[in-house]
This record gives sequence, structure tokens and C-alpha cells, in this order.
Amino acid sequence: METTNQTIEPDFIFGTLATDDLRLASIKKEHSGLWHGQRLSPQDPRPGESITVTIGVGPDISADRVTLYVTTDGSEPRGQHGVAENGFAIPLEKIHVDWDTLLWGYRDTWQASIPPQPAGTHVQYIIEAWQTVSGASVYAGRRIPRQVFGFFVDEQTVPQWLRDAVIYQIFVDRFAPDPDSDFIQTDTLNTHFGGTLKGITGRLDYLADLGITCVWLTPIFTSPTYHRYDATDFFSIDAMLGTEDDFRALVAEAHRRGIRVVLDFVANHISHRHPIFLQAQQNGGTPYADWFTFNNHPYDYDTFFGVKSMPKLNTDHPTARQYLIEAAQYWLRAGCDGYRLDHAQGPTHAFWSIFRRATRAVKPDSVTFGEVVEPPSLQRSFAGRMDGTLDFLLHQALRNFFAYNQLTASQFNAFLQRHMSYFPENFILPSFLDNHDMNRFLWVVNGDVRRLKLAALCQFTLPGPPIVYYGTEVGLSQKAHVGPMEECRLPMIWDEAAQDRQLLGFYEDVIALRHKGKAEWEKPRTVLALDDERGIYVYRVGRFTIALNNCDCPAEISLPHHETSRLELATVAGVSRTKTTGILQIPPYGGVCLKDMA
Amino acid sequence: METTNQTIEPDFIFGTLATDDLRLASIKKEHSGLWHGQRLSPQDPRPGESITVTIGVGPDISADRVTLYVTTDGSEPRGQHGVAENGFAIPLEKIHVDWDTLLWGYRDTWQASIPPQPAGTHVQYIIEAWQTVSGASVYAGRRIPRQVFGFFVDEQTVPQWLRDAVIYQIFVDRFAPDPDSDFIQTDTLNTHFGGTLKGITGRLDYLADLGITCVWLTPIFTSPTYHRYDATDFFSIDAMLGTEDDFRALVAEAHRRGIRVVLDFVANHISHRHPIFLQAQQNGGTPYADWFTFNNHPYDYDTFFGVKSMPKLNTDHPTARQYLIEAAQYWLRAGCDGYRLDHAQGPTHAFWSIFRRATRAVKPDSVTFGEVVEPPSLQRSFAGRMDGTLDFLLHQALRNFFAYNQLTASQFNAFLQRHMSYFPENFILPSFLDNHDMNRFLWVVNGDVRRLKLAALCQFTLPGPPIVYYGTEVGLSQKAHVGPMEECRLPMIWDEAAQDRQLLGFYEDVIALRHKGKAEWEKPRTVLALDDERGIYVYRVGRFTIALNNCDCPAEISLPHHETSRLELATVAGVSRTKTTGILQIPPYGGVCLKDMA
Repeated sequence: METTNQTIEPDFIFGTLATDDLRLASIKKEHSGLWHGQRLSPQDPRPGESITVTIGVGPDISADRVTLYVTTDGSEPRGQHGVAENGFAIPLEKIHVDWDTLLWGYRDTWQASIPPQPAGTHVQYIIEAWQTVSGASVYAGRRIPRQVFGFFVDEQTVPQWLRDAVIYQIFVDRFAPDPDSDFIQTDTLNTHFGGTLKGITGRLDYLADLGITCVWLTPIFTSPTYHRYDATDFFSIDAMLGTEDDFRALVAEAHRRGIRVVLDFVANHISHRHPIFLQAQQNGGTPYADWFTFNNHPYDYDTFFGVKSMPKLNTDHPTARQYLIEAAQYWLRAGCDGYRLDHAQGPTHAFWSIFRRATRAVKPDSVTFGEVVEPPSLQRSFAGRMDGTLDFLLHQALRNFFAYNQLTASQFNAFLQRHMSYFPENFILPSFLDNHDMNRFLWVVNGDVRRLKLAALCQFTLPGPPIVYYGTEVGLSQKAHVGPMEECRLPMIWDEAAQDRQLLGFYEDVIALRHKGKAEWEKPRTVLALDDERGIYVYRVGRFTIALNNCDCPAEISLPHHETSRLELATVAGVSRTKTTGILQIPPYGGVCLKDMA
Repeated sequence: METTNQTIEPDFIFGTLATDDLRLASIKKEHSGLWHGQRLSPQDPRPGESITVTIGVGPDISADRVTLYVTTDGSEPRGQHGVAENGFAIPLEKIHVDWDTLLWGYRDTWQASIPPQPAGTHVQYIIEAWQTVSGASVYAGRRIPRQVFGFFVDEQTVPQWLRDAVIYQIFVDRFAPDPDSDFIQTDTLNTHFGGTLKGITGRLDYLADLGITCVWLTPIFTSPTYHRYDATDFFSIDAMLGTEDDFRALVAEAHRRGIRVVLDFVANHISHRHPIFLQAQQNGGTPYADWFTFNNHPYDYDTFFGVKSMPKLNTDHPTARQYLIEAAQYWLRAGCDGYRLDHAQGPTHAFWSIFRRATRAVKPDSVTFGEVVEPPSLQRSFAGRMDGTLDFLLHQALRNFFAYNQLTASQFNAFLQRHMSYFPENFILPSFLDNHDMNRFLWVVNGDVRRLKLAALCQFTLPGPPIVYYGTEVGLSQKAHVGPMEECRLPMIWDEAAQDRQLLGFYEDVIALRHKGKAEWEKPRTVLALDDERGIYVYRVGRFTIALNNCDCPAEISLPHHETSRLELATVAGVSRTKTTGILQIPPYGGVCLKDMA
């Protein structure tokens, strides 16, 4: 593990709301026009529950009528000016008028109730607002453009295996070459290193020994790039990675070891070399052209954040949707256990509802969790559409507390309490310290393994299933700051002499601790000590007491009930404990976990 | 009346939230720290009603306990960490956690209920938030600094005379010199012109003939300036204006004509030449020093928007408060009928609660309405503390529609509908087209009297009691844009040859219309026509139909029920009406009012 003398950088916020101006624009957009924001209550309706739909009508909209046009039979809702043409119309009621200082105008909130529906119902709806004059005649209509909202009334829950999982993120090209082979090169970061599926299979014992119960593989479908987030075919394994048989073998071997396999699924966009896009680009008249949004055919089209090689798919187009869903079902049948959904805020909520229903139909305990880097209000809106979202906000708070000293212990605690209470019970937030799109945690703490371990101890004692980014456990770091994202995607260290074996031992221990406390990490937690000046944070959850000394000086902490607990894990050497007094001494940047004795 | 060729300027927003940056800062402040914002439900508690208190706890506050310390006996509430030292403690409950994109953090909302109280109870409370650790021990306390909140539980309502009033704003120095005298000068705008109380008395017949039922006089207490918004004595009439006897005579003569007299009351600040301020400045040890906020004695002190000649009063200081309230009671006993409260958001809500109670005790049908230029959320928070607030937002919308063409008819209508539903019934919003702090309406429409009359017809058919700024009725305008506010404070035109007599006739008519429709203007209204392209807006309220052609081309409007209504008022010549078809033809910028026949 290399140590550098870099300056610790301010936090990196991945996403589209990194600055004040972007946030302001986002709020102004939510407060203008007609805005639904998927506000349903309950967010994830169960059979027999009445469903309240909320719509905001911004200062720029003059409307005295708002109507939902709803279908419950899978057909497309249609209607105008209060009259349904397909399905039925439900008028909304104005609930309150609020003043909006930012937009300097009034904003209305309207609501309607969709009556309770039986299990399996596919509810779809569109929204229209307009102004009447003299009661009857119509002045001007307005609807949320092109958008059909939809969800399934069902009783889906997060599979228990995901709640209990310890997940290992494998950046496939960088993890392991075929057994007895080497990476094909080690210098050019933005091309292939030659990781393969057989390579992963060959390392499953390593992962099982570590305690991993789920691997998330970055994309493996055929693609012209080394990262493969831009597929040219969703139905084949990239030839450089191996064959479909290799995939089936990997899954079988993983399952034999109690390890689930989650694939990365990119529904938002495909490669510009995908045959369907090539056809659409060559001929604007082909039905495939509607899979995309051509602003000016053939060269001006919607993309993933302006990347021309990644044309955005219209996931609400029936055949595009079908293509994606059939692919997802295909690989579940081939053995995978679910999907990490890349850029999940790209496709609509309606798409993900159908996606989950279709994948669960093939494999009832399969999972879906999304990459949603936007605010938690958007993440929460996916409840019922997927099992959860990656916990970007926690990741930010963990860095702000453990790496950047931008949060005090009490601020960090207040964040955690609020964050945990914000999401519904039936929604899961896998946690991570880093991933393939940001500086590694070990890099931002200047290689200080103590701080990594302290943050990991905290991560592993929080509710969300923890993710370990490949290599973290053996001290894999970087040579330079990300800019090019490749800096955080260096090849895995397999040479034991180059691995941080002490860190690896810690990860085995903290993963074992995680499994030991299964079903306890989601319990309510109590704060036992908070010291902002000395960076001390002590909390209790289930039978565990966790004491963190996030400071470069030693800490002395007095613990209640010390007689009946024993030291389960210490992140640093030199922790001492006086049994008679309950005084715990923790060296700088050290953490301990105590467990009640039965 | 002079006509100029000026460009119509974008709207002028008086107040502290004129720009995006200021609005953003205001919102960030409301969403940070502990924020109460006088959110009570009901806002104006009646005897026997339970009172819900709402507090926001911003992302920057780490707190797991919030407590109110309440008294109901007039004594000051005190307490800490959940234990009341005077009064009683009410713990708040966390109601929900919201995500705040602007502050990029979570924000809690806490609530508590104060039990129902009997009539006349003075409820006072302070708010504290803090963090506990291990259930009991206290980590850190935080309270809303220095602030005691308070209100009276009572059954006060807006006196009917104010609801029915047509108000005339007199800028005293500029309205009328003593009878048979002339203004003392006509050129130097920022010094005295010599208007007097006797002058006003001499013009009461003029005002009575016009139909005015209430005059609001700008400040008349002793002051070094011509505008007198900075008094040196609250208990004497400025010698240049006359004597206390002159005031009593004015009130008596006004009352004899059915005209109420409302004075301008400045509680926020006094003159820096006021003897009390001079003493406070000379001697930081005098009790008077606490009437002000000296940041660095004697020259650095809080002021009215940085104006050093207007030191801000600490209106919650017991003797300062008593001084102001005794003055207010004194002039009510001398005959005045209530107060227009200058810069009413300066003093606290608690102050205005006591102020209203004290003034009502002396004169049960006296009124108070505040100048609150901030957003309607703040205006509404004064419900129960004063009878209403001047309708700055309506004024802005009237200008945006009738002067600047920045609102369409449907946007203007949507604004009105929302605005009227936003405020409680027991709260009044006097309306105005202009006042002494902005360009006159006639000036911003380039002297186009048609547009002034059209806006006035709309103003006079809305719920709030209309205010006419002196001189508007005879075409008084300006010579230059405000910058110096004096531009909109030119002396009244008394020379009939120089008056716009046709406009005066219109004002007599529209005021007569207002009185004729008494009790009808607050009724629900229906939209009969909206045409954004042609600027047509037709609505119905009570027995009246109002048709506005806010466009420079003629309008043809088809009216329902035309057989049973008659033309009550037209703002322009040339309106024609076909009885058989109900087609109404209105020349450019013309408006009409029809009234149902009995």
C-alpha cells in the first residue's frame, strides 16, 4: 500500500446537483409547471389500500381543474378535459395553496384517491390540468408531456438474502485474468486489462473465505469498451470475458459457495455501435428510430450526459422496453440473482415497475437496486419500483466525517438518525465507501489504513448491506486523483506480498461481525457518547456497542454495562479496557465493537 | 395631467426580497437553525381551541429534543433541558423528516399542542432544542435567541367599518395648507411644503363628496423631517402641522362626515434626535440604552435599513414597549380610529399582539393594519396580531397586468384566485395602486388615464378595502422617476383648471359603485371570459359583472344573462351594448360594470 502526501480534497459529489445553481434550478423545476414527482401515498401500494396521488401546480400554470385518467387493465390511459377516452377519470381536489418565495408566486397542491386495487393490478395514469370558464367551457389544457405513470399493486418485499448480504463489487476487466494467466497489460488505464469470468470463478474461494455472500459484476455484455457500460448486444457475453457457458459455470460455482451474482444492467443507453442504433441512424423511417430521441436526425440525439457514444434509449417505447426486459429475464434464467440498475433515474418509474414485475416473475427472490445519485427524495420515490438504491448520501456523510472532518460527531449522528428514518422499511440502501466512479477512500485519507478501518467498522454496523469495492480489503489505492475515472480502477493485487494482509484480516473480521449481528443492524440505535471536540461517537445497536475515536489523539471512554460485554473487534492495536471501571482507551483513529454476553 | 413618452419600466418591488439572491438567502435562513415562523394552527387561536405549534429544525442543528416553555399568566417563560423554571414545559414531537435540496441536508418538523385557553389569556413561550446522550444526560442546548413569542387568545374580529371603507391616503405635508393659504414653496421636493391639519379639515367636504370613509394620514408627530417617519416625540403634533386642538377638530369634523381617521404609527424606529436616543447615546449606562441595540456604543447601533438617523427600537423592552403603547392609546383617546403600522415586520409579533390588545381596550372598534412588504407567508402570520396588512402582492399583480403586460389574463386570474384563498377570513388586505414609496400608477402608464381607470375598476371590485393615494383622482402624476421618493409626493392639485375633472368624476362613480356593492365584494367570484391574446377578463361577483378590455384594440364580448342586467359604470366613452344579443363592445383599455336588476 502506497502512502502519498496529497492534500485531502473537498468532497466529490457524483451527480447532477453538485452546485448551488444546479440545486436551485432543480427546485425551480419541481415548483413550476405540473409536477407529480411520483408522490403516491403509500408510495408502494399494497392490495386493498387506497392510493393518494399528489400533484403540484406551479405559479406559471393557470388551472382550476386537474384530472387523472387511469387504467387498471394494462391499456394506455387516455382522456381530455375531464372525460376519459380509455379507462376512467378521477378529478383532483385542491388541498392547499402555498407561497413560493423562490418563484415569487403561489403554488397549489392537488390530490385524488385511486380506489383500492387487487393484487397484480397494473395501475397506469396520465395527468391533465386546465382552466374552465363559466363552469363548463374549456379554456386551455395542459398535461405532463408524454408521460404515462404506472405501478403494480403487489406484495413484493426485499428478499431477506439481500438484507443480510455482504456485497463485493467486481470491476470485471480489472479483477482477475484466467487462472494461471496474467493481466494482459498494466499501464494503459483506458483499455482492456483482461479480467475474465473464469478469472472470477477462480477467485470465488478467496471471496468465500472473506465472507462475501454476493458479487456485483460491472457489465459483462458485448461492448466495444473495457468498462462495458455501453452494450452492442444484451444477449451475449463479451467475447473477451468468456462464453455463456463460462457465465453459467461462474454462477453455479458461486451458488455452491453461498454467493449470489448480481449483474450491472444499463437500461438508460446503449452503444452507438449497437446494430439497432446503427439502423435507426441510417434510416429515420425504421421503427427503431423511435427507440431513441432524435432532435435532428441522424446526428443530434439524446445521450447519457452528452456522451455521443451512448445514445439514450426511450425505455417507454413498447419494443425497446420489451428488448430490455427480455434480456433481463434471459440472464436470470441463466442463473444470475438480480441487477444493479445503472443510472436508474434515466428510465421512468413506470419502466422499473414493469422491469421488477418481469424479473420477479422469472426468479421470485431476484433483486434490483438502483444507482440514483440525486437527492433522497428521488431515491425514496423508487420504493415499490425496485428494492432499493445505492446509498450515495451515506457515502458522502461517511467521507465528510471520517475523511474530510467536515462533519462533527453530533452532526454525523443527526444525519444518520434522519437518514434512517426517511426511507420506508421495505426499501434497502446498500452502503459503500467508494466505487468505480470516484477516488478510493484509502486514497482520500492519504493511505491511512486506520481511517479506512474506522469508516468500515461504522459502515458495517449500519442497516444497509455493505459493499466492498474490489481490492479495498488488500489496500488497493491509486496513483493519481481521478479525473480520468480509470485512476480508481487499477488492477486487483493478487500478489500476497503486495497485499496488506493485516487489512485483509480486518475485513474478514468485520464481515464476520456483520454476519454475527444479522437481523440486529436494522434495530433502533441509541447514542451513548458524542464529543465533537474529540471526535468521539459511541452508539449501541442490538447487542452491540460501537465506539469510534475519529481523532488523531487517544480517547478514554467510560462505558455503561461494561461488566456484561466483551470486546468483539478492534480496528487498531493498543486498545485497553479496565474491566472494573468500564474505561476504554482507544488509540487515535481506532474503533472497537463490544458485544453483550448472553 | 401631463403625458410623457417614457419607457414603461419593469416592476418595482419594494422590500427586502427583490432579487433571486435575497430570496435564496431568505429561504436558506428559514430552513436552517431553529425556525418557528409564527406557525400556529389556528394562526389566531380562539378561546377553547387547542393550539398546534410548529418548529423547523434545520440540517445544521443536531437535536433529539425540542421543548416549549409556556406561561399563561403574563409572566416570562423560562426553562432549560425540558424543565420549566417559570410556567410549564411542553415537549414537541418529531412529525416528519424532509430532504432539503437547497441546503443539501435533512430538516425536521416538530409539533406540540398548547391546551385550549380561556378568552383573554396571554400565551407566551420560548423554544429550545438540544441533544441527549444515553437518554438523560445533556449534550448541547440551543434556543431561538432572545425571543419570547406571544399572543392573546381572544375573539377579536376586523371591524365592519374597515371592511366597508374606501380609504384615502394623505401625505400630510403635501396635501393642503391652511385654508386660504398656499403651499409655502413648490420646488424643493425634499423639504416642507406646508400641508397642515387645518388644511385637511378644510378639504373634508371634498373627500366626503368623493365618497371617502377613512383617511390615513402619514405621520403627524413631532419630527425633524417633512415626511415625519422619524419622530422625536410621540405625544405631540408637529408644530408645523398645527396643535393638538387642530387634531381634535379634524377628527370631530371628519367623524361628523362619516370619515374615520387612521394615523401612521412607526414603532420600529425613532429619530436619532429623539431625547431618549440622545440620552442612550450619551450614556451607555442609562436604562434607555437598552431600548436600542448598540453593537458598539455610541455610534454603531441597529437602524432601519442602515439609515443612521433612524435607530431601531427594541420593542420587546418593557419600558420602550410601554412608551409606544401609551402613545397609541393617547391618540385613540384623542379621537383617532386606528393605525397603519409602518414597517410592521420590524417589531415582533409578540409586540403587535400586545399593541392590538391595548388599543382595542381603549377603543373597541379601532383598527390596525400593517405595512409588510415581505411575502404573503409572513403577512398571513400576523393574523390575530393585527387586522390585516397592506396588499403589496396584489399591487404588484395589478401593475404586472394593467401597466406592464407581464401577466396574461389567465395568469392574473389564477393569481387572484390563489391570493384570495390564501388568507384567513378574519384578515383584511387593503388594496392600492400606488403609495408614497413608488412611482405613481399614472406615471408608469405614461399618463394613459384609460389604463388607470381600468386598473381602478378592478381594484374597487376586489375584496380588500381600496386605498386612493391623494391626487390620483385628479390626475396628479410625477415629473421624473422615483429614485428620490419625493418624485411621487408632489403637492396636491387644488386648482380645478389643472385637475382632471373627468377622472375625478370617474373616481366618484367607482367609489359609489364600491359602496353600492358593500358586502358583495368578498363573495366568491366566477370567471366568465378569459382571453390571453386579446387581454379580456370578465368575472362575476355578487350581483355584478365586470368586463375588462386590457388591450389597445376594441373588444367584443358576449355576456350571458344580459337581459336582466344594466350598465352601471363604464371607464371609457363609446361602450355599446346590443340588448338582444348581449354583445358588449368595449373600446381599447375600457372596462364596464353591469349590475343585475332586482
